[in-house]
Amino acid sequence: MSPETEQDASGRATLALRRVAIDTYGENVAYLHRDCEVYRAEGFQALAKVEVRANGRAILATLNVVDDPAIVQNCELGLSEDAFEQLGVADGHPVSVAQAEPPESIPALFRKVGGERLGREDFAAIVRDIAQRRYSKIELTAFVVACNRGELDREEVYFLTEAMVQSGRRLDWHEPLVVDKHCIGGIPGNRTSMLVVPIVSAYGLVFPKTSSRAITSPAGTADTMAVLANVELPFEQLTGIVREHRGCLAWGGTADLSPADDVLIAVERPLSIDSPGQMVASILSKKIAAGATHLVLDIPIGPTAKVRSMPEAQRLRRLFEYVAQRMNLSLDVVITDGRQPIGRGVGPVLEARDVMQVLENDPQACDDLRQKSLRLAGRLIECSPDVRGGDGYGIARDILESGRALTQMRAIVQAQGARGFDHHHPPLGALVQEVRAPVAGVVTGIDNLQIAQVARLAGAPKVPGAGVDLQVRLGETVAAGGVLYRVHANYPADMAFARQASERLSGITLGTSAQVPHVFVEF
Amino acid sequence: MSPETEQDASGRATLALRRVAIDTYGENVAYLHRDCEVYRAEGFQALAKVEVRANGRAILATLNVVDDPAIVQNCELGLSEDAFEQLGVADGHPVSVAQAEPPESIPALFRKVGGERLGREDFAAIVRDIAQRRYSKIELTAFVVACNRGELDREEVYFLTEAMVQSGRRLDWHEPLVVDKHCIGGIPGNRTSMLVVPIVSAYGLVFPKTSSRAITSPAGTADTMAVLANVELPFEQLTGIVREHRGCLAWGGTADLSPADDVLIAVERPLSIDSPGQMVASILSKKIAAGATHLVLDIPIGPTAKVRSMPEAQRLRRLFEYVAQRMNLSLDVVITDGRQPIGRGVGPVLEARDVMQVLENDPQACDDLRQKSLRLAGRLIECSPDVRGGDGYGIARDILESGRALTQMRAIVQAQGARGFDHHHPPLGALVQEVRAPVAGVVTGIDNLQIAQVARLAGAPKVPGAGVDLQVRLGETVAAGGVLYRVHANYPADMAFARQASERLSGITLGTSAQVPHVFVEF
Repeated sequence: MSPETEQDASGRATLALRRVAIDTYGENVAYLHRDCEVYRAEGFQALAKVEVRANGRAILATLNVVDDPAIVQNCELGLSEDAFEQLGVADGHPVSVAQAEPPESIPALFRKVGGERLGREDFAAIVRDIAQRRYSKIELTAFVVACNRGELDREEVYFLTEAMVQSGRRLDWHEPLVVDKHCIGGIPGNRTSMLVVPIVSAYGLVFPKTSSRAITSPAGTADTMAVLANVELPFEQLTGIVREHRGCLAWGGTADLSPADDVLIAVERPLSIDSPGQMVASILSKKIAAGATHLVLDIPIGPTAKVRSMPEAQRLRRLFEYVAQRMNLSLDVVITDGRQPIGRGVGPVLEARDVMQVLENDPQACDDLRQKSLRLAGRLIECSPDVRGGDGYGIARDILESGRALTQMRAIVQAQGARGFDHHHPPLGALVQEVRAPVAGVVTGIDNLQIAQVARLAGAPKVPGAGVDLQVRLGETVAAGGVLYRVHANYPADMAFARQASERLSGITLGTSAQVPHVFVEF
Repeated sequence: MSPETEQDASGRATLALRRVAIDTYGENVAYLHRDCEVYRAEGFQALAKVEVRANGRAILATLNVVDDPAIVQNCELGLSEDAFEQLGVADGHPVSVAQAEPPESIPALFRKVGGERLGREDFAAIVRDIAQRRYSKIELTAFVVACNRGELDREEVYFLTEAMVQSGRRLDWHEPLVVDKHCIGGIPGNRTSMLVVPIVSAYGLVFPKTSSRAITSPAGTADTMAVLANVELPFEQLTGIVREHRGCLAWGGTADLSPADDVLIAVERPLSIDSPGQMVASILSKKIAAGATHLVLDIPIGPTAKVRSMPEAQRLRRLFEYVAQRMNLSLDVVITDGRQPIGRGVGPVLEARDVMQVLENDPQACDDLRQKSLRLAGRLIECSPDVRGGDGYGIARDILESGRALTQMRAIVQAQGARGFDHHHPPLGALVQEVRAPVAGVVTGIDNLQIAQVARLAGAPKVPGAGVDLQVRLGETVAAGGVLYRVHANYPADMAFARQASERLSGITLGTSAQVPHVFVEF
């Protein structure tokens, strides 16, 4: 190392930090010039993990080697945009760089890949390293695949859940009763949270609802709520709103709840992995970290739902209950009808419209969305020690019909920052395409997966006004040429993709009333 | 899209290609400016896989989004150094870019991740996509982990092997008998190929030996041969040398043999995955693609070898034999003594010295390396229909002792391009450290893994003169303070790491002669 090279207090060579304006989408990348003395002296390899330090902070990054001084010079260390933000020091600030130590939990990961059962400490170490983004994509994928397919016994699922809670912030509302609800997903239009939160928080229970954006669906609760109000709330604002209004409907990403879950989802999604163990750990860790003491969990069953039979639903219910009990969470699992989408709209604006119609007691409102929301709200209200089992539904209905739920929703929307959405004139995608019945018949199937796919191709959730507006329900009779659903889009290319998909498979089957699938459950 | 944007013949928008001087180490990266119309119109996401086309060629790349026109401008598409080379067109050439189609074999991958048995067509499709680098790191890892741990039955291992052979070039030497040898690895210093090739090819059998560089060991055959001669031979030169001299000792990377294997190894290595199914498919596919008709396979057993018991070795032997028979490869498995390193030197130059001493019939030559090489060469010579079983060893010994093997090695070295190595004055690392016996005793263990680790930390194979020079063998008596081995290095930092490791654990155990481990096999 030449005598000119700067050194930091511990004698490590330092370089000048440079922001490299490349967006590597969540993957930290460090750029060193090939002629940089540090690069040569340390014997780094491209794609190696390096640790960059400045001002007592450290981040991990993947190394790219640069041959162009216009990008970084010999005496500089470049960081991609996200990585630069994370380190939080200014351009030109001295930084030091060293080979990153391999994550401590790698031996435990190798044991899991080798088929062994892991203990509490192993899961804690692995999840800590994942949350600190010390795992490479290869290591993350190995963990996800090795834990797939019932490879985790229920004790391991408990250890994983506990470790995920511990990996991030855990909220404490200083209340004996903090309620939450969650659905395992897979049913388009199922926006019950946006009704259950105002009803139950109007009743007086604390309900700090944080939700995710859509991962593979056409809208998550956070996407639909974003039509009405700001959902990206700084942590202090979120807690302030809950203290004042007893409830909120926010995006959970800012609260650092179970951060390892977010890292794992980025790998699970492209592999379509959604194993029971990982689902239970993901959902329960988020809810427990959010401070919930009582949770109502919705497991829909249907031929195109995530869960397709009652025995499967019961197995999943037992796993949820086992882990919840170990984590001291009071859990009420409800198994619901998942044979078709809930409500009419599928897509953020369309779903926001459906929700507001129910809150306004509009006679046109979707009855299935209303009924399911009242039942879920009733179950949560019954968590209150003053309410007798069976009385919750009536209380919820009174709150909705009296307009108190609407008032409460308006207060939450105002507190989060209203967006000025008028559901009587929803800003739907200007391009409209009708999908019609080829023959007359009774609706015998509405494919959740295909309807979601058409809505996504039309642009949802990125284009909030895009999506599918269903005009029929299971068991209804349709004339030949009758409208089955309308597709809304903003861009011709999106509409072309959605039309191709719906022409290949509309997602709606017509037949005779005898063919309408049996209702698995009566909730 | 604005009217100014150029379009290619199929109406796709084109951009001007720009080489971005960033070395992303084998991962193709494409750079688009955030304000580029194509980026916005196509709705790309950062980290998406895109397909870049020009002149009828196409490559796949991961997308990074750039906010600095000094890196790429709105009208440009940047490619990282490797990707630019692969596309093979000049700076400024028009290119088109589109979202890459997901690999066709993804449904089969998902079935394997879900625990299903796959068929011949499934493996063919998966391996084709892997060889064409259509799989992301996530998908590659999922495949490797899902095939780990006996998840493949032997029929599936056969399908995988066959698919790997078909994924690349398959050499045909137009000879009825083409021999090869391979060791499953794990034994430092085990450089028998560099003796077996000259002996057997001097006898007259065709022996086109291609080998790998070290992956996790201190030297592969290609690293050690590179001390003597050029090993990176263009394909035509390689085949020319084999036609003229009946043998070669080349690096296999240029011949495009079983290219899927190279892609998979990049994922298996950081996960330390070396399952029987993957080992069999990897080794046999390379050998069959290289045109071998007869293979001798060396499986060493020992307490620190890859295979640690005779039942395990026999299971592995049966799997190799099953797949070889399905692939019409004549296979002779030999189970050998893997209790300690072979020869004295561990590291490219040290091993080259050992090999040359044996070829020169130097009385100082390592007898274990000589004996093992003669036995393996004898087995291969017996593949010849003229040779009676049991006569091969004597023929091999005559070829070695007569100096014909040395002459043949010199001819191969000259043909490949001699490096001017003088084994009487080997260019060893200038820094030397001796590791000595703390007490007197009999050598009862030499840890293959620890010796390899010390040699790697000292710099091998990147620094050819670095490594470990063993001074003792199992069963020998050492005085207190006697030299166990010498460590050679070129750089003080390397030597410091190697010394720390050898001080923590020298890798050599001393005790009484009764404690010397039992020889599993007599080969």
